Amino acid sequence: MNKKQCVDEAIHAYYCQSGAVSERLIEAILYSVDAGGKRFRPLILLDLLEDLGIKLDSGHYDVAAALEMIHTASLIHDDLPAMDNDDYRRGRLTNHKQFDEATAILAGDSLFLDPFGLISGANLADRVKVNLIQSLSQASGSFGMVAGQMLDMAAEHSHPSIEELATIHRHKTGCLLAYPFFAAGILADVSQKELVLLKQIGELVGLSFQVRDDILDVTADFATLGKTPNKDIVAQKVTYPSLLGLDNSHHILEDTLNRAFALVEELEVRQSRKFIKLRALLERLRLDD
Amino acid sequence: MNKKQCVDEAIHAYYCQSGAVSERLIEAILYSVDAGGKRFRPLILLDLLEDLGIKLDSGHYDVAAALEMIHTASLIHDDLPAMDNDDYRRGRLTNHKQFDEATAILAGDSLFLDPFGLISGANLADRVKVNLIQSLSQASGSFGMVAGQMLDMAAEHSHPSIEELATIHRHKTGCLLAYPFFAAGILADVSQKELVLLKQIGELVGLSFQVRDDILDVTADFATLGKTPNKDIVAQKVTYPSLLGLDNSHHILEDTLNRAFALVEELEVRQSRKFIKLRALLERLRLDD
Repeated sequence: MNKKQCVDEAIHAYYCQSGAVSERLIEAILYSVDAGGKRFRPLILLDLLEDLGIKLDSGHYDVAAALEMIHTASLIHDDLPAMDNDDYRRGRLTNHKQFDEATAILAGDSLFLDPFGLISGANLADRVKVNLIQSLSQASGSFGMVAGQMLDMAAEHSHPSIEELATIHRHKTGCLLAYPFFAAGILADVSQKELVLLKQIGELVGLSFQVRDDILDVTADFATLGKTPNKDIVAQKVTYPSLLGLDNSHHILEDTLNRAFALVEELEVRQSRKFIKLRALLERLRLDD
Repeated sequence: MNKKQCVDEAIHAYYCQSGAVSERLIEAILYSVDAGGKRFRPLILLDLLEDLGIKLDSGHYDVAAALEMIHTASLIHDDLPAMDNDDYRRGRLTNHKQFDEATAILAGDSLFLDPFGLISGANLADRVKVNLIQSLSQASGSFGMVAGQMLDMAAEHSHPSIEELATIHRHKTGCLLAYPFFAAGILADVSQKELVLLKQIGELVGLSFQVRDDILDVTADFATLGKTPNKDIVAQKVTYPSLLGLDNSHHILEDTLNRAFALVEELEVRQSRKFIKLRALLERLRLDD
């Protein structure tokens, strides 16, 4: 099994344990889990652990699975009629269209609650589990992702500044993208200084990811002239290109990635090892101007 | 401060820490936290700890607060239009009526995610925290409360048997009512045998609570003739009285409480101490035939 399959297996194992109470609930949960996600966040965690010289085992896959479960829950709830009201995600019906709204709310609730049980039962030291659970709760709850989604909804009726836009993204997508960097540091038991470096790289990856996404939304639209205009423009969403223009957005992405590379170099010196997979990840986030 | 105030203080302290990202989100969360709940579940935990001879401190209040947060989240989501569609709870507007549906979904999500951060940061041993988090996740997620809510919604379109009704309640309300019994045992570091006894008593309290609630729903209706008929009957909900009649329901309640008292006596012999507060709790659940 490759790493993605091991993560999927860890999620399925949790839900296919004996004693299912509501089969329809499990079905709705796995419908969204198996909806074709790239497992971007779990793979960052596992790649980073390998860069740090750690041999992967079940405990690591459980943490990666828990992270993906929280991400999946947020997608199910974001798609709800009261939120973004999306009927499709990656070409498939969204959870509330495939099932119903109540089921989608409950499937999301489960995917927010279950990951903490999964990590608690993982084959890891108690001190490590408490640390990972605390940071996952903070990255996702009312001081992290959920707060970012709240700010994002409010911003639809206002005109956020670039600072406000950055605050929205730092929470809505940044916290959960930075989490695997912090979690890898905890799991590999790195020094406090290296943990700070990892967190900083994680935050820069989160920012790069968002700026890149905003740019692609515009350029994909230019390239596919005649097709439905892209989602951000239709929704009149404030984005990096809409606030600063495409050229400046490209510069911000480039500058952010360069700052991340500089921190990776510092990490490499401290650890006396190459972070080949982390470097490859950063390279993949680059866009030609 | 009395125990209820200490629990409220623990929840407020978590949300009033510096670094609030979305003030409206915190406002919506505290609106429901402060909606006049009796703190039934937290008080069971704290009373039991005192019965077990434990001196209460901040770590215990944090666990009690976390339990109440999960309960509050479930009420916010249960009231949503897609679920029970309630406009009022305890005479106040429900969260989605006071704010809006998206805010209510996100306030509930936060109150599901934050408790695990609160327990992780509590002044308790790591081993204890992992144990409490794992059991709280299991009691609330897709093998506990959320699954019960799912079954309850499905039962509205079917005619559940008494066994199916018991399964619904055991999960929907029973798991979170039994949790403080288990948690008290973990926090007081009781023997494995005593932990099993506590869990059994907790399950019987959960059942008593539900049967009592169903009976009161009917008898309150008889007593207030001329007023709006009670909610269960209007919703054509299957209840203990509707399936078995009032007399049998009274017998079940009485029998369940007597079984609980017998287990309390066994616990008292093992611990060589009186469980005065637990006995008082069970007495309060009795109804005159």
